Amino acid sequence: MTRYSETIERVMELLGKLPGIGARTAERLTFHLLKSDDAEALALADAVRDLKTKIRPCSICFNPTEREVCNLCADERRDKSTICVVEQPKDLLALESTGAYRGVYHVLMGVIDPLHDVEPEDLTIARLIERVQAGGVNEVILATNPTVAGDGTSLYIAEHLEHPGVKVTRLARGLPAGGQIEYANKSILSDAINERRGV
Amino acid sequence: MTRYSETIERVMELLGKLPGIGARTAERLTFHLLKSDDAEALALADAVRDLKTKIRPCSICFNPTEREVCNLCADERRDKSTICVVEQPKDLLALESTGAYRGVYHVLMGVIDPLHDVEPEDLTIARLIERVQAGGVNEVILATNPTVAGDGTSLYIAEHLEHPGVKVTRLARGLPAGGQIEYANKSILSDAINERRGV
Repeated sequence: MTRYSETIERVMELLGKLPGIGARTAERLTFHLLKSDDAEALALADAVRDLKTKIRPCSICFNPTEREVCNLCADERRDKSTICVVEQPKDLLALESTGAYRGVYHVLMGVIDPLHDVEPEDLTIARLIERVQAGGVNEVILATNPTVAGDGTSLYIAEHLEHPGVKVTRLARGLPAGGQIEYANKSILSDAINERRGV
Repeated sequence: MTRYSETIERVMELLGKLPGIGARTAERLTFHLLKSDDAEALALADAVRDLKTKIRPCSICFNPTEREVCNLCADERRDKSTICVVEQPKDLLALESTGAYRGVYHVLMGVIDPLHDVEPEDLTIARLIERVQAGGVNEVILATNPTVAGDGTSLYIAEHLEHPGVKVTRLARGLPAGGQIEYANKSILSDAINERRGV
């Protein structure tokens, strides 16, 4: 079968490898780029290049950054004695957006998931333990997702993180604000009952 | 609100400008690229750059190519006396995939669409007329889409393409092979009745 010219085929192939982008979408995007403003398409090419060359994990918390140490870890006003452990940079951003937390973070870069060949060594858990052992930490908040893999990862970390004077906590479980008991599933309701508190 | 680092935000913003890619998808793609193999992401950056720097319209038919003249126009075995006029490179590829056509093409790069500010001058119609006037052409097949804009564009071209010895034709209309009369709409059935032929 006749194909597009080599360069077009290559862009289509590479775009088609991205998650959620099928062959038809890749074709549409490629022709969009081909027709679009030169500056815009070249800016995208450069930005993707920068993403792989300029961005690296923060040497303290593994949040992606252009610098040696990320903005949050470098911020004098953040409370360095509290570390909130999250799975992904996205989770960090979601927690930050609340403005309710003034400590620092530690990004695991995944969850323990043996079925997909993700072992504890593949995450940044060892580095977290080092941070705690280095001293100055009062509390570690485990903020993994409330899923089987997230809970398993938190459990593993809690077991390996015992250190005098360091309190290990996790995020509260219960009914989601704005939700309805009628539509909550068994796990949510069990959590809500088990973690009930005085009014 | 706290944001990702500048480079990450820029990739997200540029990806989010692509058609059909919203903010959430752009974020997911960006983090996929950030985690993915360096070689693959850089290959994508380079390919997008090549797309804008190496690809240009064929000087004869406007099909995108890396060369001055595209493979089809350069092919000695193609019948240069028949020109099939299509809206987009995708249409050319679809027709080529049938193997039923041995002539050459002319890519309009769109359809006349005054509501979206696409006038005849924005397409490659003038160049098509020049090709025909240069001689050696026996037939021009108008293969625009069977839509209002496609039909309008074909009509415009037919009116401006009168040239002695040049037959202007269009693709056949009727029932789509494999379709069912029961589900065909009025336009399809009208075409099928009006263009009926002897068995």
